Amino acid sequence: MDFQDIIIKKRDQQQLTSQEISFFIQGVTDGSLPDYQISALLMAILLNGMTPEETAVMTKEMANSGATFDLSSVPGFKVDKHSTGGVADTTTLILAPLVASVGVPVVKMSGRGLGFSGGTIDKLESIPGFRVDVTEEQALAYGRQSGIVLMSQTDNLTPADKKLYALRDVTGTVDSIPLIAASIMSKKIAAGADGIVLDVKCGSGAFMKTQEDARALAQVMVSMGRHVGRKVTAVISGMDQPLGMKIGNRLEVLEAIEVLKGHTKGDLLEVSLLLGAHMLLLANRVPTVEEGKALLAKQIENGQGLAKFRELLEQQGGDVRILSDESSLPLSPCALEVRAEQSGFITHMNTAKIGRASQETGAGRAYKGQPLDFGAGIVMEKRLGDPVEKGDLLATVYSGTAEKAASAAEILRSAISMGPETVSPPPLVLEIISE
Amino acid sequence: MDFQDIIIKKRDQQQLTSQEISFFIQGVTDGSLPDYQISALLMAILLNGMTPEETAVMTKEMANSGATFDLSSVPGFKVDKHSTGGVADTTTLILAPLVASVGVPVVKMSGRGLGFSGGTIDKLESIPGFRVDVTEEQALAYGRQSGIVLMSQTDNLTPADKKLYALRDVTGTVDSIPLIAASIMSKKIAAGADGIVLDVKCGSGAFMKTQEDARALAQVMVSMGRHVGRKVTAVISGMDQPLGMKIGNRLEVLEAIEVLKGHTKGDLLEVSLLLGAHMLLLANRVPTVEEGKALLAKQIENGQGLAKFRELLEQQGGDVRILSDESSLPLSPCALEVRAEQSGFITHMNTAKIGRASQETGAGRAYKGQPLDFGAGIVMEKRLGDPVEKGDLLATVYSGTAEKAASAAEILRSAISMGPETVSPPPLVLEIISE
Repeated sequence: MDFQDIIIKKRDQQQLTSQEISFFIQGVTDGSLPDYQISALLMAILLNGMTPEETAVMTKEMANSGATFDLSSVPGFKVDKHSTGGVADTTTLILAPLVASVGVPVVKMSGRGLGFSGGTIDKLESIPGFRVDVTEEQALAYGRQSGIVLMSQTDNLTPADKKLYALRDVTGTVDSIPLIAASIMSKKIAAGADGIVLDVKCGSGAFMKTQEDARALAQVMVSMGRHVGRKVTAVISGMDQPLGMKIGNRLEVLEAIEVLKGHTKGDLLEVSLLLGAHMLLLANRVPTVEEGKALLAKQIENGQGLAKFRELLEQQGGDVRILSDESSLPLSPCALEVRAEQSGFITHMNTAKIGRASQETGAGRAYKGQPLDFGAGIVMEKRLGDPVEKGDLLATVYSGTAEKAASAAEILRSAISMGPETVSPPPLVLEIISE
Repeated sequence: MDFQDIIIKKRDQQQLTSQEISFFIQGVTDGSLPDYQISALLMAILLNGMTPEETAVMTKEMANSGATFDLSSVPGFKVDKHSTGGVADTTTLILAPLVASVGVPVVKMSGRGLGFSGGTIDKLESIPGFRVDVTEEQALAYGRQSGIVLMSQTDNLTPADKKLYALRDVTGTVDSIPLIAASIMSKKIAAGADGIVLDVKCGSGAFMKTQEDARALAQVMVSMGRHVGRKVTAVISGMDQPLGMKIGNRLEVLEAIEVLKGHTKGDLLEVSLLLGAHMLLLANRVPTVEEGKALLAKQIENGQGLAKFRELLEQQGGDVRILSDESSLPLSPCALEVRAEQSGFITHMNTAKIGRASQETGAGRAYKGQPLDFGAGIVMEKRLGDPVEKGDLLATVYSGTAEKAASAAEILRSAISMGPETVSPPPLVLEIISE
């Protein structure tokens, strides 16, 4: 098979056969295809698209390009969850213990953050002592014992995705729905869960800016479930303002603990309960979403969710004092208040820019491998539509230096718009897509 | 400047600025841009196009990416000619001596053949002793003395084009009108002529299969002339059958000599006179194309065209005995006749396939650098619309081995269609595009 013929076929808007897609992914995996040919095909795919069938075949090939994680020795229906990435989007730390606490095992691999979007692994690493590098043997043992494992992706999983993503990242070929879907789903399939709930973020702080794009991505991934024999539900949730009030690694851990303690309500809790309930529904643990939400809410009230989180900390070496003593998760020393310069209402938030402000504090990465300041970030005080008096506190910025704090505060200020009339808060959940 | 932003801009159908195109071509030239980013941009250009302005800027940058040939020490208005590549397309060997013989200097760099299409440099090298590697100093001296130089492109010209072409050749990004136009015109501009006549071939034996594509390419290149201060005319000529009757390197030299002697008429002569006349028109040597054609035809009759060809041979070491003794250009030993299996008329020729048959004899290359059998090729006996009796000779194939001759004959036979009714010969010249 001549790879150039495959490039030309896609360039000319023809559908690729399973054999051609298999040749492509195998050639990416074994290094036999040169990068310059791969990137030409990626651009042709971005511009000419792929059918759901092509995307499903590519995803399966990518999932099988390396090791796959066999969870069969953990009893029960294993559920996983993936967010396409947002700001103050800490749902995993909340829903994983809640779901596991009602007997549905969550053995979950997560990633690091890049750009305006945070990553679960970074948040976990900001907890003193917490080990995210867990071997497969350990993970299976933990899964059988506690029913909850949060770990970084093992190195041998989906090498084709790693190679393709690195190339997409520098060739302008990230923003392709089939390529995004294949990247996400190949990792989830290789990670072994029986059911997957996808949180497709949509809005100013998400990769998908419009509901149409978010829906298209969700539909491709849900329909892929059928092709690969996994149960998949996608929730399209709004990201037109930060989901929680705290942005930054330790700050988000602190907020997750507050939610698990029942001290903090609001959008972060709501979305966590909804996603968790869909996980329970996939696992047939509850008959309806409403019952799932009620069950998980009860696990907050009775303290069992927090107890499961403590079990997770103990299991993976994390300092349990963080549950009772906030000073065990110290914040960065330079705190800078951002106050309103006028009175009015919060009318718009450029959420990606708020994520960039957080990145500027040291909480996020501009490039892969960049070290993080775990104590840095932003505490937001207002939400869309809130009334504000001149001088009110809008947010507090935490950073390692006064310069970075000032620079982040400036970005943050430019990301928040005010006006004379209030606006309705945007819907939190836009759509649910399932088979 | 971040090159990925340039890729994304073109991916999103935006026009690139001169600065961005300059950054691109300079990065290609100095090797600072990785191939995988370049090929992603090439695919985006192929699929989203480029405006005439973008194409002109890219062409100028490519022309200036290496040395440029300064012809100012050769007196007069220097003319060049380029064909987009056809089969039995030997016009250069005919028109260059004719044009030079009336005092308009032709200092011309040419290329080698690849695939079904032949190259002037290969034909010249098939002449015993002929040197195509001429230094710039020699070329200028020859130009002043004889007014004619046919030479291979010097190594230091248009390095950006060489790099881009090598990448396009393996990434499915050859068939892009802006990229083709920039490749051709950058070389012609760097080669220094004041006026350029382009022979854009169109039909079954050309890269441009339709008149629309050929016209689009011609228009881009002609309008580019304005941007770069060169006079450019494009002739769109038919390539639905081989232009001459002989295909292969020595065979084409022999046919050119026959035409220069006035012994052979037909399409090859007609197109050579037309292209040559347009060169004279650009040089203001004649007031009309018709007068140009008449002047050049007279140079055949009076022997001055042939005399200029002899001068070229003497100047560059070629054996002048080829002008009087055909055996000085020996053909390959295995000759195989292809005869009609039925009676009727020639209704269609797949000219690219005829070119492939010639390639199969050893006359053409499947890959760059492949050595050629100079004596190999095909002598055609029929043209479109000709009546044929069963058993008539259609063509004779010359090759180094009986196997290759048989294989070429089979391809050739499948390339010629016959039917019960005659067809009108297709128009030889479809359109002339000039400023």
